Amino acid sequence: MSSTFGTLYRVTTFGESHGRGVGAIVDGYPPRVPLAEADIQPQLDRRRPGQSHLTTDRAETDRVTILSGVENGLTLGSPIAVLVANKDQKPSDYKEMQFVPRPSHADYTYQMKYGIRAASGGGRSSARETIARVAAGAMAEKFLHVICGVEIIAWVSAVGNISAPEVDIEKITRAEVDRTAVRCPHQNTASRMQKEIEAAKEEKDSIGGIITCVCRNLAAGWGEPVFDKMEAKLAQAMLSIPATKGFEIGSGFAGTRMRGSAHNDAFIKKGDRLGTRTNFSGGTQGGISNGEPIFFRVAFKPPATIGRTQETADFEGQAVALAAKGRHDPCVVPRAVPIVETMAALVLADFALRQKARG
Amino acid sequence: MSSTFGTLYRVTTFGESHGRGVGAIVDGYPPRVPLAEADIQPQLDRRRPGQSHLTTDRAETDRVTILSGVENGLTLGSPIAVLVANKDQKPSDYKEMQFVPRPSHADYTYQMKYGIRAASGGGRSSARETIARVAAGAMAEKFLHVICGVEIIAWVSAVGNISAPEVDIEKITRAEVDRTAVRCPHQNTASRMQKEIEAAKEEKDSIGGIITCVCRNLAAGWGEPVFDKMEAKLAQAMLSIPATKGFEIGSGFAGTRMRGSAHNDAFIKKGDRLGTRTNFSGGTQGGISNGEPIFFRVAFKPPATIGRTQETADFEGQAVALAAKGRHDPCVVPRAVPIVETMAALVLADFALRQKARG
Amino acid sequence: MSSTFGTLYRVTTFGESHGRGVGAIVDGYPPRVPLAEADIQPQLDRRRPGQSHLTTDRAETDRVTILSGVENGLTLGSPIAVLVANKDQKPSDYKEMQFVPRPSHADYTYQMKYGIRAASGGGRSSARETIARVAAGAMAEKFLHVICGVEIIAWVSAVGNISAPEVDIEKITRAEVDRTAVRCPHQNTASRMQKEIEAAKEEKDSIGGIITCVCRNLAAGWGEPVFDKMEAKLAQAMLSIPATKGFEIGSGFAGTRMRGSAHNDAFIKKGDRLGTRTNFSGGTQGGISNGEPIFFRVAFKPPATIGRTQETADFEGQAVALAAKGRHDPCVVPRAVPIVETMAALVLADFALRQKARG
Amino acid sequence: MSSTFGTLYRVTTFGESHGRGVGAIVDGYPPRVPLAEADIQPQLDRRRPGQSHLTTDRAETDRVTILSGVENGLTLGSPIAVLVANKDQKPSDYKEMQFVPRPSHADYTYQMKYGIRAASGGGRSSARETIARVAAGAMAEKFLHVICGVEIIAWVSAVGNISAPEVDIEKITRAEVDRTAVRCPHQNTASRMQKEIEAAKEEKDSIGGIITCVCRNLAAGWGEPVFDKMEAKLAQAMLSIPATKGFEIGSGFAGTRMRGSAHNDAFIKKGDRLGTRTNFSGGTQGGISNGEPIFFRVAFKPPATIGRTQETADFEGQAVALAAKGRHDPCVVPRAVPIVETMAALVLADFALRQKARG
Repeated sequence: MSSTFGTLYRVTTFGESHGRGVGAIVDGYPPRVPLAEADIQPQLDRRRPGQSHLTTDRAETDRVTILSGVENGLTLGSPIAVLVANKDQKPSDYKEMQFVPRPSHADYTYQMKYGIRAASGGGRSSARETIARVAAGAMAEKFLHVICGVEIIAWVSAVGNISAPEVDIEKITRAEVDRTAVRCPHQNTASRMQKEIEAAKEEKDSIGGIITCVCRNLAAGWGEPVFDKMEAKLAQAMLSIPATKGFEIGSGFAGTRMRGSAHNDAFIKKGDRLGTRTNFSGGTQGGISNGEPIFFRVAFKPPATIGRTQETADFEGQAVALAAKGRHDPCVVPRAVPIVETMAALVLADFALRQKARG
Repeated sequence: MSSTFGTLYRVTTFGESHGRGVGAIVDGYPPRVPLAEADIQPQLDRRRPGQSHLTTDRAETDRVTILSGVENGLTLGSPIAVLVANKDQKPSDYKEMQFVPRPSHADYTYQMKYGIRAASGGGRSSARETIARVAAGAMAEKFLHVICGVEIIAWVSAVGNISAPEVDIEKITRAEVDRTAVRCPHQNTASRMQKEIEAAKEEKDSIGGIITCVCRNLAAGWGEPVFDKMEAKLAQAMLSIPATKGFEIGSGFAGTRMRGSAHNDAFIKKGDRLGTRTNFSGGTQGGISNGEPIFFRVAFKPPATIGRTQETADFEGQAVALAAKGRHDPCVVPRAVPIVETMAALVLADFALRQKARG
Repeated sequence: MSSTFGTLYRVTTFGESHGRGVGAIVDGYPPRVPLAEADIQPQLDRRRPGQSHLTTDRAETDRVTILSGVENGLTLGSPIAVLVANKDQKPSDYKEMQFVPRPSHADYTYQMKYGIRAASGGGRSSARETIARVAAGAMAEKFLHVICGVEIIAWVSAVGNISAPEVDIEKITRAEVDRTAVRCPHQNTASRMQKEIEAAKEEKDSIGGIITCVCRNLAAGWGEPVFDKMEAKLAQAMLSIPATKGFEIGSGFAGTRMRGSAHNDAFIKKGDRLGTRTNFSGGTQGGISNGEPIFFRVAFKPPATIGRTQETADFEGQAVALAAKGRHDPCVVPRAVPIVETMAALVLADFALRQKARG
Repeated sequence: MSSTFGTLYRVTTFGESHGRGVGAIVDGYPPRVPLAEADIQPQLDRRRPGQSHLTTDRAETDRVTILSGVENGLTLGSPIAVLVANKDQKPSDYKEMQFVPRPSHADYTYQMKYGIRAASGGGRSSARETIARVAAGAMAEKFLHVICGVEIIAWVSAVGNISAPEVDIEKITRAEVDRTAVRCPHQNTASRMQKEIEAAKEEKDSIGGIITCVCRNLAAGWGEPVFDKMEAKLAQAMLSIPATKGFEIGSGFAGTRMRGSAHNDAFIKKGDRLGTRTNFSGGTQGGISNGEPIFFRVAFKPPATIGRTQETADFEGQAVALAAKGRHDPCVVPRAVPIVETMAALVLADFALRQKARG
């Protein structure tokens, strides 16, 4: 288990799907920053199941409580612990798991790794684990926004075969993203995505998608070569989110088909700083932010839990037919938008503090 | 600077392009493993510039010396330091860099981060830095191969628009990969890739590409959720390699267009273990290896150094025309194959030891 | 703030004296170990204020709750979070602290470090912080005892000028230690110590003391040279406990006056293992346990909070007279016994796992 | 093996007594600091064997080379690697070690830990290992001195039963310390210490001693509670030095015999800052520097290598007589003075950078 992330903005999380709660300790939060539960709750609400018919209909309220590190509305510099209690537990939904590892879930691998696994609901591999990250990352967003002026905005850019047109990454806002339940800022595409998700749900199936994220107004100089490069830590952060299968920054995989003469980002004067004419680099060169927007895309597979019957094997290798009875999301990307944003915030907050130490 | 990677198999690297040498300390190498310079040199030779006309014609011999941690051919359990001296220095090639940050290089970002930068050759952001990783990773490969039976094989699967057909990831060997200078095991495709690279070189331009990598014979149970998942650390490792822009594991970005019913990897009995019928997961579920081959793809951009004249700006923001005079690779993927393999080895060696502590 | 301790048995703590609670996350706890709150509570009870008239008369119940990582009485291998709610808060006791930094307390240094400090009760520097360590360390004791057979026993060996005679470190038990309120196993000395503490209390003053600790039945081979040697991590652990001023292992400071011929621990056969005739080394050579009992002593200063009036200065440098009104311990060593034991357990648990990874 | 120390000023060392060399990588050194080999060599010279008849007569020149991270006399912010080649090897001196573990040496524990050990000279547990620390710490001293104004001075305060009188910790200089070969600034005492060491040498025996160290001109606010307190990391650093058995800060063990009313350090105005009238705390409160001098004492045991015959056992448990033939120090404290200073510098440099990140 490595449930700690970060060097100076250091987050440690805990919690299974069906224990008493999930939460996190943030050690290294800068002192004297205004912080309250109200700064954290909105991202938890955006992550919460049951927001629309596109997501699971489990009703989780997920109220966060700050246990330490904040007094009279200001951070003290000491560790900030946050807790979200677990409530809506229906262990009976997960009964079959005892003998049959669910395909493309972590039942089998947890059993092989630990020689034991949570009796129900995925335990530590459950989506509930992400609550702790979102809480810790929402706290990071507060600091990044108030102290550094950084903005982080993610949106759904593809569901299955349906892709959204380009978005102006300099201007996109969370309000635009949240206008539709599917969290795609392009309304027509959003409708089509919504139909695609409904179709998958109808067929007791699931569907994948892509989230794009932009981080704006970063200073040049963030990122710690050679192993903790900006893109390297973003990639780790994103691939640590359940159900992710890919990460690309700037030109990404498409950039491999380009010539250097077209791909190179020439410098130009932008006000009082040096900027680049194009941004195929995605805001990072040599693993360090260059002052241009950082943008990247994250691939999410179709959720493994589906209502359809699947031919698979039990732990003993005997063939069995399995059909999920629990409640589940046909597509995770709408709810994963705040997870991507807050994980990006964890990366950037750590880089901000590490660069400050050098300054 | 974060030049340390790993928790129990812990590598720390040093070295600029034009200093006295590059090298690494590996702390945590298991004791009593046979290890010699001859185990490390082959991967350095595969990484070396000047292997063919497809790569830069700089001649670097890059001989590795073990300074500590090995006695009478066996590891002692103490830190193993390796050193590769720098030789072929032509600082004059890099003269213009003093006033003009090279587009899509790290000159500008290093200057912004550190307030100083190496006078020539890219300093720490140079490709020479990767020598230290390759040496440390080649040592990891030895341990993984001898003790754990793991095999790691990477190859060039795309150059520009030319993609190789599927490869049998259960059988591919390094010998097959090394049959062509371009390191694509499919001979016809290799010829076309070679022509594409020659064309780019001819035009004083550069071209990108994709490397695919497979890791075979891993035990189930490696990977440390929730932040150090198998795919998360592989992604960090790969995106820490210079010139990378993307990472995908298993079905990757293409998997986002699939339905769950098609994407789920059903379990079946394979000999005395439980395996999966398909492997869209890429050998990892919930961030933990499941015993199937791990495979992933890494996107490399076209190299930033090109002979063509580029319209850009100097540090003051004044427009200038810049043309590289130095020797450089028109395409990095042939030489990056051993870098991908050895970075994968660093990730796996650390997971092997971390899981052993749990066993 | 560095509130994380350990590499593989990794503890992160949180909590101020007057927030909602104190607690810890233990990441890396071995899976499949029987663990319950009843394993943790006894050491918390031994640490608790108000146990006798020798300690503060604040009544703190300090009930621990396990929030995660344990199911059906067995550890899952996932992070184990524990929480102890804060209850008995009387902020008014600490009113003067607002303007006057208490001598030899951390009010001044926290203010200088963070530019802010908890308004009352010492915040993170309060003795309540140690609850989290004790809980995490009691969990470590369970694992060390059940899996490795290790025993850790500490006792009060000096209060002020009163020192206890030598104790048989091979045989001493916690029951013997707990026979007296002062936790000195030598009854006559315990009585004299008790009178010394009562005298200090009477005079509205405080008094220091020494705790000796032995760790028995360790395998040879624990400890991680060169920076994480057995004695080095024990020293860090002990000096991280509030009010500590010194640490010595084996012969300690007295050993500096010896000749090597007298100090060297000659080897002799002990059953089927190699042991040493004497144990001036304190069970560690070259930073690695040698199979003999590890024993060390920890110096505690007289508590800084005293009822007597002290001539000091406020934050502005103005001379003031200060007298503590709160409830406080005249001597910390009786209650610090379980803190020393559990901090030792944190060190040993981490070494046990790190050595297992090598095995 | 844990050969890495520090969070932001991070040192990793390597090297056995009889390999090709010893050295270190310092990652996190601030950029743009003037640094040259001449800044490092003096402390290596003070540590070097063969300086006087009080130390071993092995002649080691120990010239340091900077391999990376410095260009044109300025640090680049990239990792700085330093190397000291091994030269004067006489493996034959250590022949008996093959079958007989030397009493109070690490031969036995290394064998038990790693299942293998260096064939000669103590390997990683040899005093030569400290060269790497001293080099890395001398670099830290440069930064602390030039950027922060910090001064670190250690001296021999006891040899066997001979103790030096109190020293004015505000004024003591390295020049005063180095006036005598024994490195005690009080001349009369130095003569007596010298005779004591000569007597031990004459008798083919060895003798222990104590080093006192002061760190002056630190800002208030350094130190990272709760586990990385100033005194905790100093204690770890000191107890990681070979042959150390104890550490005490401020009043130390003697302070345990004091009353709080006498021990508390009352605040008074000192110029424009708040200081304390006494300094029983040793410059740290709550684990954070308070602006007063930090001072501490380190206990060194008599060296284990002695010429006298010792009755001990071989690895099989058979009784044998052993007499060291190699060259060795009868007392380590004169040469350990720079080791204590440079280890203190490693601790302070890390705290300086960690506090800067918070500022």
